[in-house]
Amino acid sequence: MTGTGTTHETEIFVDPAVPLVRIVREFDAPPEKVFRAHTDPELLARWLGPRAHRMRVDHYDCRTGGSYRYLLGGDGYEFGFHGSFHEVRPGELIVQTFTFEGQPDGVALEKLVFEDLGAGRTRLTSTSLVDSFADRDAFVASGMESGVVEGYERLDELLAG
Amino acid sequence: MTGTGTTHETEIFVDPAVPLVRIVREFDAPPEKVFRAHTDPELLARWLGPRAHRMRVDHYDCRTGGSYRYLLGGDGYEFGFHGSFHEVRPGELIVQTFTFEGQPDGVALEKLVFEDLGAGRTRLTSTSLVDSFADRDAFVASGMESGVVEGYERLDELLAG
Repeated sequence: MTGTGTTHETEIFVDPAVPLVRIVREFDAPPEKVFRAHTDPELLARWLGPRAHRMRVDHYDCRTGGSYRYLLGGDGYEFGFHGSFHEVRPGELIVQTFTFEGQPDGVALEKLVFEDLGAGRTRLTSTSLVDSFADRDAFVASGMESGVVEGYERLDELLAG
Repeated sequence: MTGTGTTHETEIFVDPAVPLVRIVREFDAPPEKVFRAHTDPELLARWLGPRAHRMRVDHYDCRTGGSYRYLLGGDGYEFGFHGSFHEVRPGELIVQTFTFEGQPDGVALEKLVFEDLGAGRTRLTSTSLVDSFADRDAFVASGMESGVVEGYERLDELLAG
């Protein structure tokens, strides 16, 4: 949807030394607003994941020491995701764990850093750390890139609205 | 204290490929009992860390989605530690985050696996994953080994009691 004027690229880095993925994306909105779109489950449900998916929130208690669970689904299928919030610093940082319930023994440690670029712009850097290169590479190969890119385009639209 | 009959060695492995530390230790008690010594804060306070330290529990809600904070102190000093429990499977597994508050931006993802060896014995494997080799190596160099070894000797005594 070019009508929204989205020109930001989503950069995905696969670290050669450590089993993590780093995703960097800029948004035309201040950190507080981008942060809120990550912590308010009603807003999150409007942009997370590919357009074809519906998000259903089981619980989403985004504060230090809180936890979450949500489901993403389409026609006839639904995937669960859950984790806990290690630390939430308003407008700045979210550190959380993440498990895809289709692979219940897997867990990632995720860090989202919201950086104020001034002039109402934000750089969001998300890192996802796991304990093996094989798991990291399988995650990247799973097609997560297209879901992330599409989700951030939806987030652009939400922030512009 | 050799009188307790402790003969178990604490093995500490520094992974060459991934920034994690793996600690392996056997205990002469069944998994349920070793597990409970990790989840009940009153028991935990009796063994965690070196003998010279006192543990003070701020909160310790050891269940999936819960969180914790405790302090370890001696004469005139006290260190805080906090994190969240990503997953707790009774008698089997604890996955948690861990931050030493002296280094508030650092965070580790910890996995404790309780393995039933039969005959009332348990093997506990703890892994601690961070996002850089420098941080992992600093953690190992900090003298954590002596604290872990002494803590597990105290746990032997608690389990025998």
